[in-house]
Amino acid sequence: MGIGAGQVYRFVKEIQTGTRVFDWIVPKEWNIKDAYVKNSKGEKIIDFKKSNLHVLNYSIPINSKVSLKELKEHLYTIPESPDWIPYRTSYYQENWGFCLNYNQYEKLQDDQYEVVIDSTLEEGSLTYGELYLKGESEEEILFSCYVCHPSMCNDNLSGISLLVFLAKFLKNRNLKYSYRFLFIPETIGAITWLSLNENQISKIKGGLVATCLGDAGRSTYKKTRQGNSLIDKVVEKTLIDSGEEFEIIEFFPSGSDERQFSSPGFNLPIGNLTRTLYGRFEEYHTSADDLNFIQSEFLSNSFIKYLKVTYILESNRTFLNLNPKCEPQLGRRGLYQTIGALKSDPDLQIAIFWVLNFSDGKNSLLEISLKSGMQFTQIKTAADTLLKTGLLKTL
Amino acid sequence: MGIGAGQVYRFVKEIQTGTRVFDWIVPKEWNIKDAYVKNSKGEKIIDFKKSNLHVLNYSIPINSKVSLKELKEHLYTIPESPDWIPYRTSYYQENWGFCLNYNQYEKLQDDQYEVVIDSTLEEGSLTYGELYLKGESEEEILFSCYVCHPSMCNDNLSGISLLVFLAKFLKNRNLKYSYRFLFIPETIGAITWLSLNENQISKIKGGLVATCLGDAGRSTYKKTRQGNSLIDKVVEKTLIDSGEEFEIIEFFPSGSDERQFSSPGFNLPIGNLTRTLYGRFEEYHTSADDLNFIQSEFLSNSFIKYLKVTYILESNRTFLNLNPKCEPQLGRRGLYQTIGALKSDPDLQIAIFWVLNFSDGKNSLLEISLKSGMQFTQIKTAADTLLKTGLLKTL
Amino acid sequence: MGIGAGQVYRFVKEIQTGTRVFDWIVPKEWNIKDAYVKNSKGEKIIDFKKSNLHVLNYSIPINSKVSLKELKEHLYTIPESPDWIPYRTSYYQENWGFCLNYNQYEKLQDDQYEVVIDSTLEEGSLTYGELYLKGESEEEILFSCYVCHPSMCNDNLSGISLLVFLAKFLKNRNLKYSYRFLFIPETIGAITWLSLNENQISKIKGGLVATCLGDAGRSTYKKTRQGNSLIDKVVEKTLIDSGEEFEIIEFFPSGSDERQFSSPGFNLPIGNLTRTLYGRFEEYHTSADDLNFIQSEFLSNSFIKYLKVTYILESNRTFLNLNPKCEPQLGRRGLYQTIGALKSDPDLQIAIFWVLNFSDGKNSLLEISLKSGMQFTQIKTAADTLLKTGLLKTL
Repeated sequence: MGIGAGQVYRFVKEIQTGTRVFDWIVPKEWNIKDAYVKNSKGEKIIDFKKSNLHVLNYSIPINSKVSLKELKEHLYTIPESPDWIPYRTSYYQENWGFCLNYNQYEKLQDDQYEVVIDSTLEEGSLTYGELYLKGESEEEILFSCYVCHPSMCNDNLSGISLLVFLAKFLKNRNLKYSYRFLFIPETIGAITWLSLNENQISKIKGGLVATCLGDAGRSTYKKTRQGNSLIDKVVEKTLIDSGEEFEIIEFFPSGSDERQFSSPGFNLPIGNLTRTLYGRFEEYHTSADDLNFIQSEFLSNSFIKYLKVTYILESNRTFLNLNPKCEPQLGRRGLYQTIGALKSDPDLQIAIFWVLNFSDGKNSLLEISLKSGMQFTQIKTAADTLLKTGLLKTL
Repeated sequence: MGIGAGQVYRFVKEIQTGTRVFDWIVPKEWNIKDAYVKNSKGEKIIDFKKSNLHVLNYSIPINSKVSLKELKEHLYTIPESPDWIPYRTSYYQENWGFCLNYNQYEKLQDDQYEVVIDSTLEEGSLTYGELYLKGESEEEILFSCYVCHPSMCNDNLSGISLLVFLAKFLKNRNLKYSYRFLFIPETIGAITWLSLNENQISKIKGGLVATCLGDAGRSTYKKTRQGNSLIDKVVEKTLIDSGEEFEIIEFFPSGSDERQFSSPGFNLPIGNLTRTLYGRFEEYHTSADDLNFIQSEFLSNSFIKYLKVTYILESNRTFLNLNPKCEPQLGRRGLYQTIGALKSDPDLQIAIFWVLNFSDGKNSLLEISLKSGMQFTQIKTAADTLLKTGLLKTL
Repeated sequence: MGIGAGQVYRFVKEIQTGTRVFDWIVPKEWNIKDAYVKNSKGEKIIDFKKSNLHVLNYSIPINSKVSLKELKEHLYTIPESPDWIPYRTSYYQENWGFCLNYNQYEKLQDDQYEVVIDSTLEEGSLTYGELYLKGESEEEILFSCYVCHPSMCNDNLSGISLLVFLAKFLKNRNLKYSYRFLFIPETIGAITWLSLNENQISKIKGGLVATCLGDAGRSTYKKTRQGNSLIDKVVEKTLIDSGEEFEIIEFFPSGSDERQFSSPGFNLPIGNLTRTLYGRFEEYHTSADDLNFIQSEFLSNSFIKYLKVTYILESNRTFLNLNPKCEPQLGRRGLYQTIGALKSDPDLQIAIFWVLNFSDGKNSLLEISLKSGMQFTQIKTAADTLLKTGLLKTL
């Protein structure tokens, strides 16, 4: 990169249709102005302006009259949730279609319908945003979200908004790691980015795909393909220290962009820290995933967890106990309670024992905090205290 | 062997009394024509012709008159199951005796009894059967059963019959592995076979001792001494995929012929795939282990599991994903649903992701199917599909 | 040491005040003759002669008149257990004080009090006792207890008494390992001993800190820092074989002298075999930890467990099966039941199979007994039996 610590590097990149990205080709660009279905009375019974989910994404332009029978071949509904409009796409086959709620679909009568989709599918470009915050080290943490269907709130507007605020928070701070934020279309965006940055990815030490962060479910962590990498331990400790219920699940190769980051040719340690995982909530990919489905308390809870993840990443160090033979005399240094023989020691003192005993060069503060069951911040405070007395050395 | 793939090699071998086999010597051959006990009225109260379990196996010949007291020193019963005749042997000490049900034993009156055992214990030979099906590879799978007490049904006629049908099924097929079937007397037969074939056993990649396969209990797998070998994984996956309840138990060095195959000088990965394990059912080694105790539905269920074991062994391959950087574009190859953004992907597509992601040279289909929790056949179908598109290479 | 097997080496060592021991300095010696608090009527309301816990340990001498307010700044109580006198110390800060029960504290009235502590805190020495029993090997087992507050019974008189009897038991026996017993003040004593014996500690193969051994709680084992060392396995097997409930907890670096032995510069495998762990019982460090709190049946139960630990340590061996290919013919050697085909084999025979199968040079009897789930003594008996037949060789 050639930029120094503290520098910010930000851009929006356009990749032309037809560009080869590994096994894929950047597709045509789709744009849409309007779309509707009118009955013979001239009433708009489906209207893109009311909800952009009404149009099958990537629909080719059409302006035609069709019978009910033919129309129905191009309609998508969810019979099990008859009030909701589904979100559907047709990326790989040229097609047109409308999505609507099942109740409305059921009421459609035999008629001649006017179908209009005022879209273009033409040479253009794939657009993505990238933000890079340079820290002391070139080793970097990757946060990625997708921007391809922000009409839905939990999946995926919540991820975009959380990463925007996380980036704002980290900007202008002294950082140990460098941080990269990607705002990309799912799948093809990740593939494109990896293709363009293949020579840089060995710097990626870990990362998270951010999505589904505002619903009422408990926090869920889908592990990286490596399963026991730095980011896996950091997120696990973040969740434990939250004191809240949470779930950790093993990596699986379907899902979001971790599929690409974790493909065997890269095997990057990228996990997903979400609330209810994609596909596990009823509202997923429907009009019901709206601003009522998410709540600010849950989104900010997720935000605080992402902050905590970066806090642990930034604060974690490995120290060497410079007085490894027996404990040092803490009393002389003001680090031991003056009245002794209490039933239980104060937490800071217990944390100090943990840091002294396991700072043998093999364990970072993160590992000591996991082993001890104490909060990461307690272990960190103990290390800071010991560092001042000269009993520890940074490795 | 010097025989080509597809060849069948079958023989019945006779090993002479007195032959040294490791620490053992092939014993005298025992044959019996008749045996009975008559009371003073001349009534046959115990009759070998009614059940051959009535004679203590390996009994020396006798023709004598004895008192009730002396007779009783040679009688074997099971007081807890008073209607059943036990099966007993005296291989290592020359002796004679009769087995009978306890109810009858209790009724014996003071009398002069005529005991006749018309047996011979003489120089002869140990007889065993062996069938070898040559596959493409010299690496072989060993299936072993014992033929020393086929008067009882679950232990051990069920094992013999299952292996006969398994051998018939595999014969005349194109096989990847070679398969060897042993029909041997327990213990001394296994020792004899190992002694005669010591220079060949490094070809044995895994195997099973077949016994207790027709009772109503759930399937049980006793692991090999190695504990995590190919056959252990294959059987585990077979049991998981069955959708039925099962039990897996760790290796222990008593039991059947896995004792010999797994002795520390060989340490062959030979497990036991049974239903209720030997010694765990009441009818074990008694006259109650008869044709009523086993049922054809259970025996065929076991047979299907053995078939499935060979199916997985034969079908398992390790592939290399030839497009390891990001996913290949499946849509272009007709392997991705045309309408996207569904709540959950079809199983085949999930299986395709698993195969692509983990075909990194370290995982076979078997391991991928275990990791994914999907059926082995689903993973295999995905691999077959991908193979046709040229996305995989066989390792 | 230069002393032969069977030799006993015993001494009481005095280490002078001011001696540097690692990061610490041996402190002044504290002695006390009497102490009391009198009210203005001349009544002794707190009297050291009634309970030596009444004085804050290491109190400097004082002879003064104080108001109730000033007195209260030097009084220590336990409001939650208002009948008990706490045990408190002030090692690291010169101070004086009295400990009393909270009920009495509450009744103290405004008055002028005479406080007298007839103590000395002067140059002197730290005193500890050490006993060394030389065995065949220089490898040694360390048993340590602390002698600094024997006024309390479970913590710590129980540890001292148990180790005295254990040492008496082991003395004059032929021992495989050497055994060292330490009777030291907690913390400073362990540090002093380690400092004086730094060049010897590589001989320590394992050990236990003995404390809290007479209460009614179940046995508890706090593992060594290494977690899977010889002593960890020996104690685990001892507890399993007891057939009683027990608890095993992971190492943590606060606690008793294992803190020093397990500091990262030494990392000695020293665990704690106790009943209720220090700090987990209400009576801990109070006047209620008295002769009523412990019972002889529990103390002797603990003693028997320590004996069993030394028994396993002394008896454990690793053997090599000299007949590793198939089982040896046990019948010929009188080690197999003469009537065969029983539903379950006798325990000795099962144990013999375990020893033969796993005496492959990698497993000691201890490991075989853990793996088999059989009692250590059963496995040992089997090994002894096999050794007589020449089927095993000691490694």
